[in-house]
Amino acid sequence: MSMGSLAAFHTATEGDVPEPWLVVGEHSFRSRLILGIEQYTSPELVGAVLEAGGCDVFITTFDLTNARPSLLLSDLDEVVELDRFTWIGTTSFARTKDEALRTVRALRDAFGIQVMKLDVRPADNLPHNAQTVTAARELVADGFAVLPFIRPDVDTALELQDIGCSAIRVLTSPVASHRGIDDPDAVRAVIEAVDVPVVIEGGLGSPAHVVAAMELGATAVLVNTAVAVAASPARMAAAMRHAVLAGQYGVGQVTRPQA
Amino acid sequence: MSMGSLAAFHTATEGDVPEPWLVVGEHSFRSRLILGIEQYTSPELVGAVLEAGGCDVFITTFDLTNARPSLLLSDLDEVVELDRFTWIGTTSFARTKDEALRTVRALRDAFGIQVMKLDVRPADNLPHNAQTVTAARELVADGFAVLPFIRPDVDTALELQDIGCSAIRVLTSPVASHRGIDDPDAVRAVIEAVDVPVVIEGGLGSPAHVVAAMELGATAVLVNTAVAVAASPARMAAAMRHAVLAGQYGVGQVTRPQA
Repeated sequence: MSMGSLAAFHTATEGDVPEPWLVVGEHSFRSRLILGIEQYTSPELVGAVLEAGGCDVFITTFDLTNARPSLLLSDLDEVVELDRFTWIGTTSFARTKDEALRTVRALRDAFGIQVMKLDVRPADNLPHNAQTVTAARELVADGFAVLPFIRPDVDTALELQDIGCSAIRVLTSPVASHRGIDDPDAVRAVIEAVDVPVVIEGGLGSPAHVVAAMELGATAVLVNTAVAVAASPARMAAAMRHAVLAGQYGVGQVTRPQA
Repeated sequence: MSMGSLAAFHTATEGDVPEPWLVVGEHSFRSRLILGIEQYTSPELVGAVLEAGGCDVFITTFDLTNARPSLLLSDLDEVVELDRFTWIGTTSFARTKDEALRTVRALRDAFGIQVMKLDVRPADNLPHNAQTVTAARELVADGFAVLPFIRPDVDTALELQDIGCSAIRVLTSPVASHRGIDDPDAVRAVIEAVDVPVVIEGGLGSPAHVVAAMELGATAVLVNTAVAVAASPARMAAAMRHAVLAGQYGVGQVTRPQA
């Protein structure tokens, strides 16, 4: 099937714009699929992936070592309508709170970014909840909109909500593991405990995982490696976009079989 | 969320029309989601469900006892653009080969229908492979395009293909069981053995089941009860439409985790 047919069909309602699930200052987040793009080296591929995924968030980061963004924005600007996206920063390479804070400030200074995907992942590559809370407190006080990434824990999630975080991102399984949702009960507990949106993320390796995440009650999902390593990242991005909608529309509609 | 937002978003490719997966005479089947509609009593709901599902097939049947179709087409005509659909008949109430054949001929005589979804399900409500083969042979010889429904069995599927059936419909789990795919290996064996399209059907109770069916290699899926009994059948139909696309685009894109 050609790329031209990554399309819906007979859809009289296409073109309607979904309600935002998150509003931060002047930025509205509408697409419930967020794609990480820091693994790409081709601007053309980033453009194709974001388009096929129906994404409205553009995530950039700053490599503190090389003092440059993950992809050269001047190159991207030629293939992606960057204005169409809400730019957010990420600290996904930070292993400590201090590295995260330095990355955030570099992103603000370089690009004026005020919305931050906050990751603090030490050597085990799992979110460090305590350091994340400390960093989030500092960044919110400093005027940033913060989307922190934690292991599923209700107390931590409530603390981050009290601090004023815009949304909570919850780990479902180790990043890049493609394992899906290791502990649905723990994730559900967080979703039920907080009032802010909950983004499910980490190890979502297939459209089926994404459907399950949305059926569990996620407000949105963040997918990264599964799309980046697919044979056709754009095709996988389209699959993930439809998986989000399938799960979202399916919430509350599934009748379980009688025992 | 309102009905108006059963929509995709930021989809530059929307509006493209997918290639047909089956052509029978003048009829092209493009949507890979087929919805049974014989359980509905409201024409308005049938219209909303077919629209939300992006369907292009309209299935009707004839109740031999009452000598009338399952829904009055004169009522449906006011809410559904019937011309937009390929009309196919179904023998889903037939418990024997002879009942199926009588139903088919009643449908042809009443509506001129030449494309038939052939079901022969005795008291256990499971497809009877041998009677189905006999009926299919007779109907193909009589000029019908036949889509027979069988339990997953390679020899039966090959025989039906040799007879000249247009597609093979394979049972995944008992009708209305909502169990999903009981024996993926058996279904996959049929898919790999035949050259005609394979429709997966029976017990597909959730969007996740539909994603799995498409990832298994189904050409299309047929869903019935799961949508009909949902709190909002139209919303569930939209979920199923997106699930089909998620599974379809995901085929060959999923990288399994390393053991």
